[in-house]
Amino acid sequence: MLITDSLPESTERGDLRPIYIDRQSSMKALVYVGPGKKALENRPKPEIKAPTDAIVKITKTTICGTDLHILKGDVPTCKPGRILGHEGVGIVEKTGSAVTAFKAGDRVLISCVSACGKCVYCRKLMYSHCTTGGWILGNSIDGTQAEYVRIPHADSSLYPIPAGADEEALVMLSDILPTGFECGVLNGKVQPGNTVAIVGAGPIGLAALLTAQFYSPGKIIMIDLDDNRLEVAKRFGATATVNSTDGKALDAVMNLTEKRGVDTAIEAVGIPATFELCEKIIAPGGTIANIGVHGTKVDLHLENLWDRNITITTRLVDTVSTPMLLNILQSHKIDPKLLITHRFKLDKIMDAYETFGHAASTRALKVIIEA
Amino acid sequence: MLITDSLPESTERGDLRPIYIDRQSSMKALVYVGPGKKALENRPKPEIKAPTDAIVKITKTTICGTDLHILKGDVPTCKPGRILGHEGVGIVEKTGSAVTAFKAGDRVLISCVSACGKCVYCRKLMYSHCTTGGWILGNSIDGTQAEYVRIPHADSSLYPIPAGADEEALVMLSDILPTGFECGVLNGKVQPGNTVAIVGAGPIGLAALLTAQFYSPGKIIMIDLDDNRLEVAKRFGATATVNSTDGKALDAVMNLTEKRGVDTAIEAVGIPATFELCEKIIAPGGTIANIGVHGTKVDLHLENLWDRNITITTRLVDTVSTPMLLNILQSHKIDPKLLITHRFKLDKIMDAYETFGHAASTRALKVIIEA
Amino acid sequence: MLITDSLPESTERGDLRPIYIDRQSSMKALVYVGPGKKALENRPKPEIKAPTDAIVKITKTTICGTDLHILKGDVPTCKPGRILGHEGVGIVEKTGSAVTAFKAGDRVLISCVSACGKCVYCRKLMYSHCTTGGWILGNSIDGTQAEYVRIPHADSSLYPIPAGADEEALVMLSDILPTGFECGVLNGKVQPGNTVAIVGAGPIGLAALLTAQFYSPGKIIMIDLDDNRLEVAKRFGATATVNSTDGKALDAVMNLTEKRGVDTAIEAVGIPATFELCEKIIAPGGTIANIGVHGTKVDLHLENLWDRNITITTRLVDTVSTPMLLNILQSHKIDPKLLITHRFKLDKIMDAYETFGHAASTRALKVIIEA
Amino acid sequence: MLITDSLPESTERGDLRPIYIDRQSSMKALVYVGPGKKALENRPKPEIKAPTDAIVKITKTTICGTDLHILKGDVPTCKPGRILGHEGVGIVEKTGSAVTAFKAGDRVLISCVSACGKCVYCRKLMYSHCTTGGWILGNSIDGTQAEYVRIPHADSSLYPIPAGADEEALVMLSDILPTGFECGVLNGKVQPGNTVAIVGAGPIGLAALLTAQFYSPGKIIMIDLDDNRLEVAKRFGATATVNSTDGKALDAVMNLTEKRGVDTAIEAVGIPATFELCEKIIAPGGTIANIGVHGTKVDLHLENLWDRNITITTRLVDTVSTPMLLNILQSHKIDPKLLITHRFKLDKIMDAYETFGHAASTRALKVIIEA
Repeated sequence: MLITDSLPESTERGDLRPIYIDRQSSMKALVYVGPGKKALENRPKPEIKAPTDAIVKITKTTICGTDLHILKGDVPTCKPGRILGHEGVGIVEKTGSAVTAFKAGDRVLISCVSACGKCVYCRKLMYSHCTTGGWILGNSIDGTQAEYVRIPHADSSLYPIPAGADEEALVMLSDILPTGFECGVLNGKVQPGNTVAIVGAGPIGLAALLTAQFYSPGKIIMIDLDDNRLEVAKRFGATATVNSTDGKALDAVMNLTEKRGVDTAIEAVGIPATFELCEKIIAPGGTIANIGVHGTKVDLHLENLWDRNITITTRLVDTVSTPMLLNILQSHKIDPKLLITHRFKLDKIMDAYETFGHAASTRALKVIIEA
Repeated sequence: MLITDSLPESTERGDLRPIYIDRQSSMKALVYVGPGKKALENRPKPEIKAPTDAIVKITKTTICGTDLHILKGDVPTCKPGRILGHEGVGIVEKTGSAVTAFKAGDRVLISCVSACGKCVYCRKLMYSHCTTGGWILGNSIDGTQAEYVRIPHADSSLYPIPAGADEEALVMLSDILPTGFECGVLNGKVQPGNTVAIVGAGPIGLAALLTAQFYSPGKIIMIDLDDNRLEVAKRFGATATVNSTDGKALDAVMNLTEKRGVDTAIEAVGIPATFELCEKIIAPGGTIANIGVHGTKVDLHLENLWDRNITITTRLVDTVSTPMLLNILQSHKIDPKLLITHRFKLDKIMDAYETFGHAASTRALKVIIEA
Repeated sequence: MLITDSLPESTERGDLRPIYIDRQSSMKALVYVGPGKKALENRPKPEIKAPTDAIVKITKTTICGTDLHILKGDVPTCKPGRILGHEGVGIVEKTGSAVTAFKAGDRVLISCVSACGKCVYCRKLMYSHCTTGGWILGNSIDGTQAEYVRIPHADSSLYPIPAGADEEALVMLSDILPTGFECGVLNGKVQPGNTVAIVGAGPIGLAALLTAQFYSPGKIIMIDLDDNRLEVAKRFGATATVNSTDGKALDAVMNLTEKRGVDTAIEAVGIPATFELCEKIIAPGGTIANIGVHGTKVDLHLENLWDRNITITTRLVDTVSTPMLLNILQSHKIDPKLLITHRFKLDKIMDAYETFGHAASTRALKVIIEA
Repeated sequence: MLITDSLPESTERGDLRPIYIDRQSSMKALVYVGPGKKALENRPKPEIKAPTDAIVKITKTTICGTDLHILKGDVPTCKPGRILGHEGVGIVEKTGSAVTAFKAGDRVLISCVSACGKCVYCRKLMYSHCTTGGWILGNSIDGTQAEYVRIPHADSSLYPIPAGADEEALVMLSDILPTGFECGVLNGKVQPGNTVAIVGAGPIGLAALLTAQFYSPGKIIMIDLDDNRLEVAKRFGATATVNSTDGKALDAVMNLTEKRGVDTAIEAVGIPATFELCEKIIAPGGTIANIGVHGTKVDLHLENLWDRNITITTRLVDTVSTPMLLNILQSHKIDPKLLITHRFKLDKIMDAYETFGHAASTRALKVIIEA
């Protein structure tokens, strides 16, 4: 069985000779076939390779904006033939001999970042730069958009699912909630009473919006081009919204902040225009926290900013906040299920990509894939 | 008496009609006459204007790189006719009715930043952005390169000189030591055992080098184009120096850091090339602390940096560290007099500018002007 | 006119000879007459003494637990003859020549702490230890339970009242909200998802409870002896309450925290038993934040705690958070009026003390006195 | 072979029947026999028990004050029969299947704290409270005063020895340097220009003294009863010393600090008198950092301290600073060998204990045991 959305091109792949797979040990998986092409294929089930590995049977996964980037061919570390996906929950199937925190049958949350817990970066809690981990799932090793996945460094890359937790909500904790929180809210030093602007009301910007409220900022201004998403932002807690289509977002923000600008500007798009808007709206002493995945350089106007006492941060999510987010989820301070707009079965994942890839018309935020 | 280095142009100034000044109430002062022009003029002695003012008789002052920027016409807030200078020590001559911390006869250090102590920025210890102060001396009000100066917000902009302190060394505490320390070392989060690069071995870069050592970094790499200044840097404590003339500074830094890059990169020049070198040499998790006064935008390569967990900071010095620097000076941990290369009397200040303005040939770092 | 609740003793005071006061320049004021005694007296209206002073006409004030301590004779810095009170809002009547931030007619919030903004402590934002200020109102100088009060260091000890603000709510910002927030919540490092216990559900403990929620802790356990106050705590956001009358509070807290103890324990009573309960319930790595005013030593069980990586903090409120609290009040994140249970006119302030002093039976939290 | 310093009592131990040990697989080890008793015994060489274990052949070890506490019977977690010692360097002999950072033949530094790197405490960098580690070596499992030792969680509990490093100096990094640094200097927030007092000039106090200088405090006052140790402290960098035998240490410290007290007070003894001295000498806003191992409660004078804005910390060393200390050792900022006063062979370890246990007369600080 081979399902692709771009059959003709698939013959370009060297590894596409028919493979006769034992039904017992095969599984369905969404595979990156090459720029612009993906396929739902049959693949061998993953096996334990290192004593610290676990094999997890996926129950729910989702699609990330980064997956779309990969499909455009923008992520050189991800080679054709790779099973995509770095988010999900599931059930432990098998564990390596050195795994002590989990056993077969445990329900687990999968972190998008794998962490050995002992390299120089892990010891600084910078798991994103783990020398044998980091963001490797669905990137340099096979990912979670499949029936099974191999998780390296399982003890520090999986989390037990608390009894009674809602597993759909938990899928939001694999990546977008920690990303919005760590890269946007923590790096942006959101504080009680402060003024925050979030540029970009996509799933990541909305995740930043949800988690910024942990710190009770006085104002949260959401900026986007899409009125529908701004409407969602209002429901999620934005105190003001600005549609920047007219090129007057700077004025609007200044009017909302008594001409001071914002204490925290969170960039959640990844293009020069939105980053440079952040440079303009930031108040003296403020912080620009970049979340966006940028493909080109931006202009940094140091001729205006050198004496403004500002801070700019970048970060690949470390997922160090996952235990805290699990705690806070248990206390019902946020409802990440608000981010979920569509649900699909794994064998309809091609439709799920179609829906997620046309968010403007489908109004999709996050789509749940049930395996 | 009128001494100028560019007499013809001085007639352009509307306020240059001859003024008959009472000898008693007049003083000599170095005046910015207009782009490219300065003069040593006779000026009326300053008077108390607000109850929080003090008049200080200058005993020693100095010239800053920023004064050269003003003379090029690069600082629009500084208008022709302005007495330059924002550094110095002196003796209190007179105080306004609300000044309680100082009285006539007190020997004082003058901060380059004036702070009211009560506005929204002062209350965040961001004195640089004081709504009625900040860097105003020798900029929007008359400065210290004169026999007398009016100091607004005297109680929080002057510091008592400890008995027995060396006043020449203290002149370095008006601006360059707090600037190197706050904008470079504190913002750059220099820590014991860490690796630091300082790009630019001028007076400010050397001030950063001296004060970085308060935190015992493991390595301090000094980068400059001038071998003489690099030699000075070695004597000041740099553990390695790199002459970047050959365009291979990146390689050199990587070789010195086991290919990791540096934890802190301090930019102390103010041009795109040096800032962009900092972007290349910064290690994941590191901090680029900008001190340089930039006149144009720089390219920020977010396509490389978005996932590197770095921080970039800018800052106009707040001089919040002045009390600490006074303490540490008393304990002889640093010798800021090392920065002083030349000395002049006030009536030779035109020569002092000549010497300071041609540092490559004169090997000048800081010049002391005695009033 | 002399109203006292304990007339006989008043003759002990040396300064009680009859004073013939000009009606124009006299006012009513609540005076500490000596241990156990207070009186509503006629007093001369205060005058400007220093150029940084302001005279404020009180519109609303309140009574603090500390006032009861003074009346017991427990505060040696407060001498008989003192007008009590360190909280309130009012209208500026007159300002000294160096006051620039306020003018007659401005509506202002009075901080319980006076800060010069320029001494060594103010420059560290430790206003509580200002060398010419700190907590002096209604302590070493006359206070706010009167028709008028003199406020030293007015520019940095008063706050403009935002248009449309509720002045009753603002009275809570003079002392108890910043006290609960700074001494309890900030010092206690309350963080999203963490577990907090507050020992003592009086006004200060409840202020800590309200402001702890700025940081979205996962659990807030309120501990007290009074079921009524615990009931109030539940309405204010406590996730669990423990009545410690049965001596089993330790067990109860351990059961609520999976035997780990709490990340933050806030002591809001001021006696050995409650502090020592905090020592027992604190988790490894946690923080005990003391707010209580203690009259005797406590046992610190270092034989149990030396290896537990805990932190203990003490603090007299600095009121550095007042601008932030004003911001957050404007954004309606909290409703401090919930703390107000009773209202009195100034000439009934003796009744107000009676009500406030018998809180167990009257269920009083904060009482508003209208002048 | 059985060497004891208290033969008669050894018969009390149930496990002291003669064991016939194969010469190949036996080793010499210093064993805690029971309160007041220790012996150099033959013991079986340790074996790998978990895939994360390593066996290390000890080359150098040392004796800690804590070992003397154990011998007094003060550490209930350490049972008779235990091989003592939690410090040392050696050569990896064997590794478990999940150890990836080390292989046989590697020269390693042994941390006194074992850390799994993945439990809730390790993820907060609180290795001291690792749920399957912490301080277990020479306490709840056999330690390093032997020819071989089993190290659990080897990947995150051993450190590679840099080429050319002095192994004697490195033994100081197993425990006392990180202890002095983390519990004293880091917890005590030592800062440039600040004033520090260290109470207790034993090896730990001296380690705090050495590492406090990483932050360039303005003054370091060393307090002890022993003039010899104070003399050593002067050589190690103390700016003042106080012999507290006369009971006037408080006055002496106040005189050295212009009556303000110290910003940081480090307690390095572990008895009530020294902790209470810290309570008296701490300045408003200061920090008391406890390092001492306390056997009884102390009096905490909250009646004096409740409004002084102080912080008290306790900590069992986490050894999170070990990588940094290794870096800084390479840059020759400190010379920990200064702490080494005596050297012994392993078969003379009973003499080493004798020397170390009578430090007042032998002037011993740290003794090196060569295996």
